[in-house]
Amino acid sequence: MPKSNKISMSVIRRLPRYYRFISELADNGEQRISSGKLAELMNVTASQIRQDFNCFGGFGQQGYGYSISYLKSEMENILGLNKVNNAIILGAGNLGKAVALHINFAERGFNIKGIFETNPNIIGTKINDIEVMPESQVDEFIKNNDISIAMLCIPRQSVATIIDRLYNCGIKAYWNFSHFDIARKYSDTVVENVHMTDSLMTLSYRMNEKLKSEEKTEE
Amino acid sequence: MPKSNKISMSVIRRLPRYYRFISELADNGEQRISSGKLAELMNVTASQIRQDFNCFGGFGQQGYGYSISYLKSEMENILGLNKVNNAIILGAGNLGKAVALHINFAERGFNIKGIFETNPNIIGTKINDIEVMPESQVDEFIKNNDISIAMLCIPRQSVATIIDRLYNCGIKAYWNFSHFDIARKYSDTVVENVHMTDSLMTLSYRMNEKLKSEEKTEE
Repeated sequence: MPKSNKISMSVIRRLPRYYRFISELADNGEQRISSGKLAELMNVTASQIRQDFNCFGGFGQQGYGYSISYLKSEMENILGLNKVNNAIILGAGNLGKAVALHINFAERGFNIKGIFETNPNIIGTKINDIEVMPESQVDEFIKNNDISIAMLCIPRQSVATIIDRLYNCGIKAYWNFSHFDIARKYSDTVVENVHMTDSLMTLSYRMNEKLKSEEKTEE
Repeated sequence: MPKSNKISMSVIRRLPRYYRFISELADNGEQRISSGKLAELMNVTASQIRQDFNCFGGFGQQGYGYSISYLKSEMENILGLNKVNNAIILGAGNLGKAVALHINFAERGFNIKGIFETNPNIIGTKINDIEVMPESQVDEFIKNNDISIAMLCIPRQSVATIIDRLYNCGIKAYWNFSHFDIARKYSDTVVENVHMTDSLMTLSYRMNEKLKSEEKTEE
């Protein structure tokens, strides 16, 4: 049984990557894998893998490695991928469209039931067979369609404007592409932020550091 | 002087968020801020802020707090935001378009000089006044335009196909939206991955855990 109470966020954030690699091994018809072999594949240490897996109950390793199908199904349980969470996307601009079209939601336990926009030129168009609806209808749609998560592909200011309505309709989970700090306003929500510009700045930092260390070596 | 050699990746990953908050304070005309006040604003502890800032040399805190303009310009130096890195985007589908249109690259020290595609229906269209070019021209373009970074908005298999060409043209920095593991193939590169589905799975995990703990409370 997973000892979920004590698991740190850094371990949790590594789990999806483990799941990706394990899924791929399963797709390739592999049966078992040792922590050493998986470590090599994932470019981490075997002891990190064993430690991380122990946080989730160990995944029943034997002397001859982990069973891949068992590992995969256990990870799916832990990640909640075998449930179905009904979701809506707010924003059908380029970002919302990229999110709606780019990601295999069904495989991750999400079902996109509605997409909402304020731009009249986009309302009524179709994305993946889903007709884009006016944002004004979002409250009623949430109530009638058992929606548990909102994916926010709208700017920060737009999130600021609509967040109270979403929360008051019962939405407690957010996939947030904006810089609006939802968890600060509503502490009983679950929020995953995708801050693309933070990633870009980290890249800039690392490029800069690499350049500096190369210059130092040349001296 | 920043003691950059010893800074852990987790501290580095917090720096862009600090920079975002500090920029906003600067935009609002604020002059100084204490670590306590900044901590409250950012929903972290003051001691974490002081510890993190110490990694970068302390940012000259006085008894009465940090100077915001000094903090901002020092962070810009450290993040390398005042340099200009010439970049190209590979992929002008929804994701590439979202990235190209959604992000203020100039503010983060990046200059998008070219966008490349294989799809003939997209080649020749314009995104932000940049004409989308055929992918076949990418090598020559990199050589002639002092490009130092490639932003990969193409699927994993397409990255696998083109990565050797990009690397051989001298590209050592990648902003990677695919699941292709660039750093594993070329260890002397700087790679920032944006794995949106990993974030989605983390969200699923956290929703699942919250549900379980609520069920436990109700028992």
